[in-house]
Amino acid sequence: MGGTDVTVIGLGDMGRALASALVAAGHRTTVWNRSADKADELVAQGAVRAASVEEALSASPLTLVCLIDYEVTRTLLGPVAEALRGRTLVQLSNGTPEQARSLEAWATGQGAGYLDGGIMAVPGTIATPEAFVLYSGAEKHFTAHRPVFEAFGTAKYLGSDTGLASLYDLALLSGMDYLFAGFFHAVAVATSHKDVTAAGFTEFLVPWLTNMAHQLPALAADVDSDGEPAYTQGLDVLLAAARNMAQAARDAGVRAEYFDRAAADLERQLAEGGEAFTASGAVRALRVPGVSGDRA
Amino acid sequence: MGGTDVTVIGLGDMGRALASALVAAGHRTTVWNRSADKADELVAQGAVRAASVEEALSASPLTLVCLIDYEVTRTLLGPVAEALRGRTLVQLSNGTPEQARSLEAWATGQGAGYLDGGIMAVPGTIATPEAFVLYSGAEKHFTAHRPVFEAFGTAKYLGSDTGLASLYDLALLSGMDYLFAGFFHAVAVATSHKDVTAAGFTEFLVPWLTNMAHQLPALAADVDSDGEPAYTQGLDVLLAAARNMAQAARDAGVRAEYFDRAAADLERQLAEGGEAFTASGAVRALRVPGVSGDRA
Repeated sequence: MGGTDVTVIGLGDMGRALASALVAAGHRTTVWNRSADKADELVAQGAVRAASVEEALSASPLTLVCLIDYEVTRTLLGPVAEALRGRTLVQLSNGTPEQARSLEAWATGQGAGYLDGGIMAVPGTIATPEAFVLYSGAEKHFTAHRPVFEAFGTAKYLGSDTGLASLYDLALLSGMDYLFAGFFHAVAVATSHKDVTAAGFTEFLVPWLTNMAHQLPALAADVDSDGEPAYTQGLDVLLAAARNMAQAARDAGVRAEYFDRAAADLERQLAEGGEAFTASGAVRALRVPGVSGDRA
Repeated sequence: MGGTDVTVIGLGDMGRALASALVAAGHRTTVWNRSADKADELVAQGAVRAASVEEALSASPLTLVCLIDYEVTRTLLGPVAEALRGRTLVQLSNGTPEQARSLEAWATGQGAGYLDGGIMAVPGTIATPEAFVLYSGAEKHFTAHRPVFEAFGTAKYLGSDTGLASLYDLALLSGMDYLFAGFFHAVAVATSHKDVTAAGFTEFLVPWLTNMAHQLPALAADVDSDGEPAYTQGLDVLLAAARNMAQAARDAGVRAEYFDRAAADLERQLAEGGEAFTASGAVRALRVPGVSGDRA
């Protein structure tokens, strides 16, 4: 088969989707999960169930970890770290850039190669063209194992700073979280009307949000240039809209705090003499003064 | 030319885009704006500048209003309401369903036909396939003037309840507002890294959000069925992600209140014995107890 030995530790919905994609792509796949029965279906597909974390790590030159967080990862791997020596560990659990850099330091201290990854997909889209997975860390590990990674969808290498995949991952997830929150709010408002169903309303919402997402690159260019913006909007227009969105929510029996806060913020900006909304101003307003992150 | 006489009142960015599309489609178009110079470019394209609101209303059987809100609309039209008799008024300004129903009552009281509309486009996409405009009110007015409306993009009739277009409009705008807020937050976090530009990050964000928007119809179906959901997620997984998003924001020097609130809300749900997140539960949680909106 020419398959590559690979181990997957952590068989939640995403871990099972990853392992299943590996088996389907012809890779000899070893799996481990604390509740062993999570592996049953995968074993039926052809995966090998390891009896312990140590056995799982020892089974393959490459181990992918997909657990709830970095703390659980360290708790599981710590006692059997010796088994990582000379092998490569890819952390796909959700965590922060700092956690990724810290785990890399630990793993390389054990003589293991390390990559950090961020899975930009839901379990149901793994191994479809929609899925992409971000990787960061030493490029040689990415290059060596790329054929395995491509079983999941598009594999994107972001750079040698191990924190980059987590940074992108959490920033993208933040965008998704707002998207979903907006969906729930919009559906609650629309379905307050007896003639409106969530499905019927969503037929309008999906193309609308997709169209609006196409506006984002122009806003991003404004953020990068920080000069004369291509896009501006009067604060008064935005305030009128925020008040209407708050009022429509209240009239619909839906919590309006989010738009009340937005309106109050716009009122404050107008009171301070502001006139126009710009993308670079919006991003600047989110930064905590005196904290630079990883900026130069 | 076979053009239809139509008047546009209010020549902000959107009003000018509408009037320009009408002229381009061959409709004889009269325009009015408080600051008359806003009409200069349109007059050069072939529009007729009215000297007063009354003259503007009298010029055409159909008047489209695109002002900042309903209050300004009433202030402008009130003194010259007689000119509306036997004509049709289409309110495209942003407002609430209640305001739309109230303005319809006033307009019909003056002997005018009335439609309410919601423009789902930015000025730059008017008259492109991306643009759609929602209408509600008496269907005969929509049918009579549909050829005019189609100059702007797709014209969608929602129903005879005049409030429907505003309800959809404000719900869709709410979704967009969250989308943009998420974009600004995500860009602020990602560009905290010295190697990351907003443009480079947004190349990942747009397909990611587009993919995630494609998940919404499945969530909408769960909201409508309110039965066994197709999609659930462990509250513990969401809490871990919310904490990571808050921490990544903090580490990046970006305000984290939004995700701190989300984490606190998830902690409360877990403390109350909750286990799984569902779409119908998320929508239900947004409703204010005892307020029914327009539900049956």
